[in-house]
Amino acid sequence: MAVRAIHTPLLLCTMALLLTGLVSPSTAGLSLDTVREFLTREEDTIVFSLIERAKYPLNRPAYAPLHFGAGAGAEPDRHLNASFAELFIRESEAVQSKAGRYQSLQEIPFFAYRVPFTLAPLYNFTRDLYPAAAFVNVNDAIWSMYFNELLPLLAKNGDDGNYAVTADADLACLQVLSRRINYGRYVAEVKFRGDQQTYTSLIQAKDRDALMKLLTSEAQEDVVKRRVEKKAIVFGQSITLDGPIQTDVNNSSQANFKVDPSVVYKLYDQWVIPLTKQVEVEYLLHRLD
Amino acid sequence: MAVRAIHTPLLLCTMALLLTGLVSPSTAGLSLDTVREFLTREEDTIVFSLIERAKYPLNRPAYAPLHFGAGAGAEPDRHLNASFAELFIRESEAVQSKAGRYQSLQEIPFFAYRVPFTLAPLYNFTRDLYPAAAFVNVNDAIWSMYFNELLPLLAKNGDDGNYAVTADADLACLQVLSRRINYGRYVAEVKFRGDQQTYTSLIQAKDRDALMKLLTSEAQEDVVKRRVEKKAIVFGQSITLDGPIQTDVNNSSQANFKVDPSVVYKLYDQWVIPLTKQVEVEYLLHRLD
Repeated sequence: MAVRAIHTPLLLCTMALLLTGLVSPSTAGLSLDTVREFLTREEDTIVFSLIERAKYPLNRPAYAPLHFGAGAGAEPDRHLNASFAELFIRESEAVQSKAGRYQSLQEIPFFAYRVPFTLAPLYNFTRDLYPAAAFVNVNDAIWSMYFNELLPLLAKNGDDGNYAVTADADLACLQVLSRRINYGRYVAEVKFRGDQQTYTSLIQAKDRDALMKLLTSEAQEDVVKRRVEKKAIVFGQSITLDGPIQTDVNNSSQANFKVDPSVVYKLYDQWVIPLTKQVEVEYLLHRLD
Repeated sequence: MAVRAIHTPLLLCTMALLLTGLVSPSTAGLSLDTVREFLTREEDTIVFSLIERAKYPLNRPAYAPLHFGAGAGAEPDRHLNASFAELFIRESEAVQSKAGRYQSLQEIPFFAYRVPFTLAPLYNFTRDLYPAAAFVNVNDAIWSMYFNELLPLLAKNGDDGNYAVTADADLACLQVLSRRINYGRYVAEVKFRGDQQTYTSLIQAKDRDALMKLLTSEAQEDVVKRRVEKKAIVFGQSITLDGPIQTDVNNSSQANFKVDPSVVYKLYDQWVIPLTKQVEVEYLLHRLD
């Protein structure tokens, strides 16, 4: 049988059906250092993905509701008004789901897919999270923030017709923002293990405010916000062979950068850090379930 | 009818079937300046994509042949020995094809898809290329170079199980390398228009060597190679809030960079620039068809 003849989109699910193994929880490898290292490295990926999205204009038609006809009496359904970008992301995520992306708890899809089988080679992921709390995520908030707040600040007005490439760039932004923000589960797990007594009493009292206070370090958050702004400056400038590298926005217009560095500061200040802490608190509230 | 009930992977092709319009050739907007600007901007995307692939270890199981059973007497077919990464790329490209990515001549898929309909909003792309020569591309050479030569230089040995994310990073590298290298068609078109008499006589004589010589500027190629190496240094270092930005590899081990800058130099020196010129020559040889 020539595989070439098989319809490509069915390949991954029709051939070998391998179940990725379920493994027992593990505590190896997770520490405050590895967590910080992960979050710092993700900053680069976030800035890269924003710069790549900003390469294309807004391309507004990709986000307009497609208005598929609903039958008379049909219930309201937000997918009836899905945009091209949303459909593209749903289909791309479905392929990635079939390919086993979400076997790693670090990755959480924006849409639910019923694809339990995967062709991905077997791998036993360590399970660093407390199982009853691992489900916590704020993907809905990230989705809404990205399209309603962040995207209009990133992309210039205009339409170059590259809708698929643009939606693919949106997906890259969404995926890394989701991975970074929902990594708050790992942050919370490490902090919980480091001071079980304090956290246990606050969790039992369901004291959200005290948990939030305990998780907050304004000095550290300030360093992070200013560092990502610097990354936007360094990564988003036009590099010439002999010219100097700018490290601040002084002496230069913000228009010189592919993404306005103050937008990246704002992204962390208003959304990434607060949403991460929201994930941390929610995770902790389920940590003793 | 609730759209939610429809199998997601069919959404894009079963709903509205819109044919993206075919438009007449156009010469607006293409100049030596816009071509150079495009190529320079793509350097950043290439370096970002390499850094992002290098974030993950080699993840060798993603590249092992899956050995689907061939019936007795079946002809040899490279897809019978396809890897997980290849299947992942085929399925992802199929979604992007349905979404209209390849309506733009700047984008060329690695696999052929029979998906003439797309849900993508209509857009009239300008056609800057000479139709009979627009098909020229070196995607097969890029595919082979990427997996056999470049990837082993990028990714450290190791296996973290993130096969789908890894193959997705491979696809991002392949797509931008393809777009950058096959942009040689646009470079050749601009150069042809700038000196039609000289090019026409060389094309009619099928003088590949003279065409190659005419297209080569060693001084300019040297600038490009050293600039992308600098970009790898600037974009691939660990940025700290107060630390200085490195602009060369002196005083620092190459291990400090997420991708060895000399690998990026080599990528341009041995593959990107020679393959681009190969595309230019092939395009020109069809420019009078």
